[in-house]
Amino acid sequence: MSDTANNPNRKSWIPVEKDSDFPIQNIPFGVFLTRDDVITIGTRIGNTAIDLGALHQLGYFNDIPLTDDIFLQDTLNDFISDGKKTWRLVRNRIAKIFDEKNESLKNNKEHRKIVLFTLDEIEMQLPVQIGDYTDFYSSKEHATNVGTMFRDPDNALLPNWLHIPVGYHGRSSTIVPSEIPIRRPMGQTMPAGASEPVFGSSKLVDFELEMAFITTDANLMGEPIPIEEAEEYIFGLVLFNDWSARDIQKWEYVPLGPFLAKNFASSISPWIVTLDALEPFRVESPKQDPEPLPYLKYEGKKSFDIHLEVDLAPENGTPQTITKSNFKYMYWNMAQQLAHHTINGCKVNSGDMMGSGTISGPTPDSYGSMLELTWRGEKPLKMNDGSERKFINDGDTVSMRGYCENDQVRIGFGEVSNKLLPPFNPKKNKK
Amino acid sequence: MSDTANNPNRKSWIPVEKDSDFPIQNIPFGVFLTRDDVITIGTRIGNTAIDLGALHQLGYFNDIPLTDDIFLQDTLNDFISDGKKTWRLVRNRIAKIFDEKNESLKNNKEHRKIVLFTLDEIEMQLPVQIGDYTDFYSSKEHATNVGTMFRDPDNALLPNWLHIPVGYHGRSSTIVPSEIPIRRPMGQTMPAGASEPVFGSSKLVDFELEMAFITTDANLMGEPIPIEEAEEYIFGLVLFNDWSARDIQKWEYVPLGPFLAKNFASSISPWIVTLDALEPFRVESPKQDPEPLPYLKYEGKKSFDIHLEVDLAPENGTPQTITKSNFKYMYWNMAQQLAHHTINGCKVNSGDMMGSGTISGPTPDSYGSMLELTWRGEKPLKMNDGSERKFINDGDTVSMRGYCENDQVRIGFGEVSNKLLPPFNPKKNKK
Repeated sequence: MSDTANNPNRKSWIPVEKDSDFPIQNIPFGVFLTRDDVITIGTRIGNTAIDLGALHQLGYFNDIPLTDDIFLQDTLNDFISDGKKTWRLVRNRIAKIFDEKNESLKNNKEHRKIVLFTLDEIEMQLPVQIGDYTDFYSSKEHATNVGTMFRDPDNALLPNWLHIPVGYHGRSSTIVPSEIPIRRPMGQTMPAGASEPVFGSSKLVDFELEMAFITTDANLMGEPIPIEEAEEYIFGLVLFNDWSARDIQKWEYVPLGPFLAKNFASSISPWIVTLDALEPFRVESPKQDPEPLPYLKYEGKKSFDIHLEVDLAPENGTPQTITKSNFKYMYWNMAQQLAHHTINGCKVNSGDMMGSGTISGPTPDSYGSMLELTWRGEKPLKMNDGSERKFINDGDTVSMRGYCENDQVRIGFGEVSNKLLPPFNPKKNKK
Repeated sequence: MSDTANNPNRKSWIPVEKDSDFPIQNIPFGVFLTRDDVITIGTRIGNTAIDLGALHQLGYFNDIPLTDDIFLQDTLNDFISDGKKTWRLVRNRIAKIFDEKNESLKNNKEHRKIVLFTLDEIEMQLPVQIGDYTDFYSSKEHATNVGTMFRDPDNALLPNWLHIPVGYHGRSSTIVPSEIPIRRPMGQTMPAGASEPVFGSSKLVDFELEMAFITTDANLMGEPIPIEEAEEYIFGLVLFNDWSARDIQKWEYVPLGPFLAKNFASSISPWIVTLDALEPFRVESPKQDPEPLPYLKYEGKKSFDIHLEVDLAPENGTPQTITKSNFKYMYWNMAQQLAHHTINGCKVNSGDMMGSGTISGPTPDSYGSMLELTWRGEKPLKMNDGSERKFINDGDTVSMRGYCENDQVRIGFGEVSNKLLPPFNPKKNKK
């Protein structure tokens, strides 16, 4: 353990602030544009971004079987394809290079100049090319809240929910990283009491607090991934905001599920935190009753204790925390989701992304969407500036943060933060 | 017109059999592996495959603005990104090169040897890297049949159906070309009368007769595509078999739509027939009542008269045509589908694929799935070998064909033909 990247006693020669999400024990992976307008794969320690492409060219990854250009790419897909053994070798090597006792890079001013960037010198990109994106619906609290509001409080969960990690396919093309503004969508809705649908901008734009995991190539088409192997194919996790338009969703979703209500935008935190970095934070999942079918049965701790928070900031206003939840509340864990997803032989590729579904906790202050927090708008949130929110207003910025913490180390995800813009106006917006 | 690829009087110096799907007026695009194990982009006239990469290197596309390697790729995505103007220049040039009056390639034996292949020398590949795949549900007859069987014959169509081209996201990673065998999926189902779900192989594997269109880069995220521009972004069409497991679907699909019931496999015909080649076959769509909202209103003929047929062949048996339908039956046309898909600003990329949904005609012999043809298995199909079919058996091959025809020309799609294999068996199938 002491030789691996997770060694909690290791310190870096790069300064790391107290409560930083990115101590030397994290070593997440991301893609960024440098001050020289070059796209590279990198990692981060404290507030320093590290160019792995440059490090590799300078020979710091010698003896690790990597192609010369593995980090000189605009996505992590090929590196992720190399598999868990390679991820570990690279992460452990990075830990050594930046260990305060290692003077090779620390004392090489010329190399440091090429390899290290301050955060304001870089621009984070989407870390992977997402081939397919799947969204699950795995929080029992969330499914119960939604079922209570829209169906029957006495039978809030549909009959399949306790047997299946229910999921559906989403749209890859509109997943964007933190900081990219989101446009309020236009669309078709059926107002309450109306007999004909109307066209206009969504009046009920919402966030959904989720996390998503990113996979490597996992199976041949036609072959399932056994649940005991599933975690071998998970590279890491990001924070995920599944932007939703509730009024569009309500009118369109029967019988084939949400479509335009979701595919206008989803946003993610740009640093992928590896499953390895999260190892110290494994916890039991909620007890499952009824027992799942054998292909979904697992042993050991498959959940992770990840604190989650959402801030809402009105335009020119100060951010205000509106909910606190935790990834560990998920009823179905990632191993179960991946085993279920592939039980029919569905092929999973490097860079695929799988969202958890909205992560709501057991109490009203831990719900993962405005829909639940304001109970369909019946209980508006009071903002510090005196305004109220039933859903998200134009100009509001939604920011999600996530971190794990024990008495030795804190591993965080940074944030996904996006502003909601007014709807597209062909006269004003089109060049 | 006489100068374009659609000139019905043009003949090629490549022999073309009567009733061929691929006269010189077609000029579809595909990707194939050659006898030298090289992947290239190509077209087809009669039973001759044409290597466009080689043609380009030999200078036959001079004066058309194309990058040197545009056809030396394993997908058509970059070529499709070049846009409709370029597609037309290339297609018209190909028509000229192979016109019986043009002797340049015809009389150059050395060039012909490099450029031309017999069909048994090549292996067709997936023609595009499919970023996102969407499936619509746009046949009124199909939606009515399904609604009648599973919900209420008096209210077979759900309230949104006549207002929205209902669609949902599918899985790109398991779309395969013709000839690739499909495995019967394993999964979870709730048998009639049971109180607990069971695990096993699907007992109700079905085909769905569809077509799919392939797009080019169409819009910026956040901006809709107006319906009058939509067809500019459609490169062409293929036949599409949306393999389905009805028992898995029934248990899993509420409330987020079909998932594992569909994502084990979809298959396509490998030659993309351009929208330009289909121009002579434009027809009126069914009248829409109620009138759609303005963003879905269109002018002119937006449907195409494409005859569709499905054959079923038992293992070692002879193929038997089990249904005949037509693409023109679709209630919602492609322009409406694409305008709806992007009205919320959803970004569409080059190589995205959009399925029509099952294309059922008005009469029981024109239904587009076994579910409808056998009415949930109540009226089994009688096969020539004396056997019966309620759904698809292991060893059966399902083949779909499509073609347009007038008194001057026939433009066809070839076929998508795939055999259903028994379910995956970890002991037998795993190496």
